[in-house]
Amino acid sequence: MESTLFTRIINGEIPGEFVHRDDLCVVIRDIHPQAPTHLLVIPIQPLPGIQAAQDADQSLLGHLLVVARRIAEQEGLAEDGYRLVINAGDHGGQEVPHLHVHLLGGRPMRWPPG
Amino acid sequence: MESTLFTRIINGEIPGEFVHRDDLCVVIRDIHPQAPTHLLVIPIQPLPGIQAAQDADQSLLGHLLVVARRIAEQEGLAEDGYRLVINAGDHGGQEVPHLHVHLLGGRPMRWPPG
Repeated sequence: MESTLFTRIINGEIPGEFVHRDDLCVVIRDIHPQAPTHLLVIPIQPLPGIQAAQDADQSLLGHLLVVARRIAEQEGLAEDGYRLVINAGDHGGQEVPHLHVHLLGGRPMRWPPG
Repeated sequence: MESTLFTRIINGEIPGEFVHRDDLCVVIRDIHPQAPTHLLVIPIQPLPGIQAAQDADQSLLGHLLVVARRIAEQEGLAEDGYRLVINAGDHGGQEVPHLHVHLLGGRPMRWPPG
């Protein structure tokens, strides 16, 4: 199985700005930020995307969201709010075939969400 | 505790177009769709938002994402893709204080996500 861009960042082969790391996931800053705060919550296990998520992944998926909520607080976004986004496939705009949750905040997010 | 708009829909006090219902969540169509397919995955337990999510909610949160993935397939969105969005607070654009995951598809979603 080919290593994804995110796996190479997680393994330190490519630099990344880490905000969090635990046994199941990391949080890094997006290199093309779309808001004053734009982070990516990425499982270490390279699930290709939410499209591939099975019942057995439920607790990992929940962990990603709880970590996103915690890091949002840590980044000072709790009071004003923020948006979490998961892109799936072409129409979703998914660019890396390794599941990741976008966490965006620091400005009012518009509607529709893209 | 005041009943939320979504709790009233779940309880049948206000009409909603249901696509899915299980012991933990429902999926309804958004009444102001922002894409050809625009659904809401809503936990029956009225968690006020992702901001309130605790470790104990991890498995429920994961369930919401797995259900979103399954319903996306059922709606014919698996091949082209889709976007999942969770709004938190004012900057996120959260309008109902009851956690819900937006599932949008049927058109290419733009970037940034709002």
